[in-house]
Amino acid sequence: MIKLKNSVGNFKVLKVNKSNSVEADDLIVTEEPLQIRLQFLQDNEWIEKPISITMRTPGNDFELVLGFLHNESIINSAKDILQIKYCKTVKPEEEGNVIVVKLSPGISFDMTHLNRYFFTNSSCGICGKTAIDAVSNNCKNTHQNNLLKIDIETVWRLNDLLAPEQTIFNYTGGIHASALFTVHGEFEVVKEDVGRHNALDKVIGNALIKELLPLRNNILFLSGRISFELVQKAIRAGICIIVAIGAPSGLAVKLAKENKITIIGFLKKDRFNIYSHPERIIQ
Amino acid sequence: MIKLKNSVGNFKVLKVNKSNSVEADDLIVTEEPLQIRLQFLQDNEWIEKPISITMRTPGNDFELVLGFLHNESIINSAKDILQIKYCKTVKPEEEGNVIVVKLSPGISFDMTHLNRYFFTNSSCGICGKTAIDAVSNNCKNTHQNNLLKIDIETVWRLNDLLAPEQTIFNYTGGIHASALFTVHGEFEVVKEDVGRHNALDKVIGNALIKELLPLRNNILFLSGRISFELVQKAIRAGICIIVAIGAPSGLAVKLAKENKITIIGFLKKDRFNIYSHPERIIQ
Repeated sequence: MIKLKNSVGNFKVLKVNKSNSVEADDLIVTEEPLQIRLQFLQDNEWIEKPISITMRTPGNDFELVLGFLHNESIINSAKDILQIKYCKTVKPEEEGNVIVVKLSPGISFDMTHLNRYFFTNSSCGICGKTAIDAVSNNCKNTHQNNLLKIDIETVWRLNDLLAPEQTIFNYTGGIHASALFTVHGEFEVVKEDVGRHNALDKVIGNALIKELLPLRNNILFLSGRISFELVQKAIRAGICIIVAIGAPSGLAVKLAKENKITIIGFLKKDRFNIYSHPERIIQ
Repeated sequence: MIKLKNSVGNFKVLKVNKSNSVEADDLIVTEEPLQIRLQFLQDNEWIEKPISITMRTPGNDFELVLGFLHNESIINSAKDILQIKYCKTVKPEEEGNVIVVKLSPGISFDMTHLNRYFFTNSSCGICGKTAIDAVSNNCKNTHQNNLLKIDIETVWRLNDLLAPEQTIFNYTGGIHASALFTVHGEFEVVKEDVGRHNALDKVIGNALIKELLPLRNNILFLSGRISFELVQKAIRAGICIIVAIGAPSGLAVKLAKENKITIIGFLKKDRFNIYSHPERIIQ
């Protein structure tokens, strides 16, 4: 397990205010590239392929990778993985930044099914996919909980409940958080990352390891804005209530409406907006 | 030119506060996929390849594409482009979301030189690049202006100067901005997008069209945090002062120090932090 000390670094900064400036030690969030390599059995032969690189904050790397693979529909549960480990045969500067995942022999892997991260892998000139197809993971919320409702008082409490749990944010002020709460507003887990996609991947990967997927009875809380791709990830994980500090995009709202996902945005101390399926919030 | 009306959409939302909830019309920022296709001459034959898909806010699309191609070192100036246009032979739902760029005949294009957006294009199993190489555009700030200095009073003014220019943000509250100011703090240009990389690409593409690159005498202002890749883009465009509302990452600061870039973060009304090369700020 990588500790907090790898997620932040010590820097000398000049702190300036209207009357003076002083040199001070400051904690800054770490950002490093993580390469994911996949090993899979094809025609009785083990093949290894690098499939993705993401800039991420070190920490919870295995969860990040498993959440990513789940979102890409490469795996459905922890059973689909034989082994996950840091690659040892890398250059010193890459140590801890390359992860190898060995898929179970029964799990087929087809590069052409992957989404835009892999878009240019297709050897065709124009692959015939529409742009929206290429970014879509064709999520269908077969796991959704149409009956899930939460009390409005729970929504008001979420921000205060999360604040003390955002360890890295509290040190650096510069990182996204993604968290799960129960339907009654009890805090379950939070993950942080410079990338908001990574923070959500870590949360979903954590649930996958604990065999908690699909997350039919959870509230997903996001520290930032809600993009189309974050809603896709949530749907694929079975989540049907998303609450965020920031704004959703139009496409995120459209996808949420189509899949019966409740989206709350701009959560402040005394107000918020409901963008889709407000019937889940008991007022 | 795509107008503001394509950058935002009208949605019905439920606005909730502590005492009541009312349905209201709300403007939400648009997010749509943009596919970039490149046409280039190879062995006396015109070849067309889709090279990237990005989720972006429609508006300033040509600038986004040109800035992106500049950052990837595919082009250096507007001369390297014969033509840029929306693809007309697409499905109705893709209209306005596919752009074709025709490179000038002298401009060579090699997919293997591209960075992580294209990472999996290489047919090799493990391509030998380190992860950091794969995300690096090998930027070298050959254009930097070591003599550029700005007055501290200019820094204090930036936020107030930008606020009225952030058109989409002022309507939606949910979008990133990237802007250029002169060394004396005069506002030059702002571009907005759901993606902060896109917002910066639009600013750089705009400067490329106006033949203003390299931006040796400008201050780059970012509405959010400063990632490694944003610093890379800035260096490639010749920028050497970056001011942001948010925090930089550790890798962003490291890259800035190596390339003599001044980074200011956490700009508030009464304080900010200088992370690198403070000698450019006259106090």
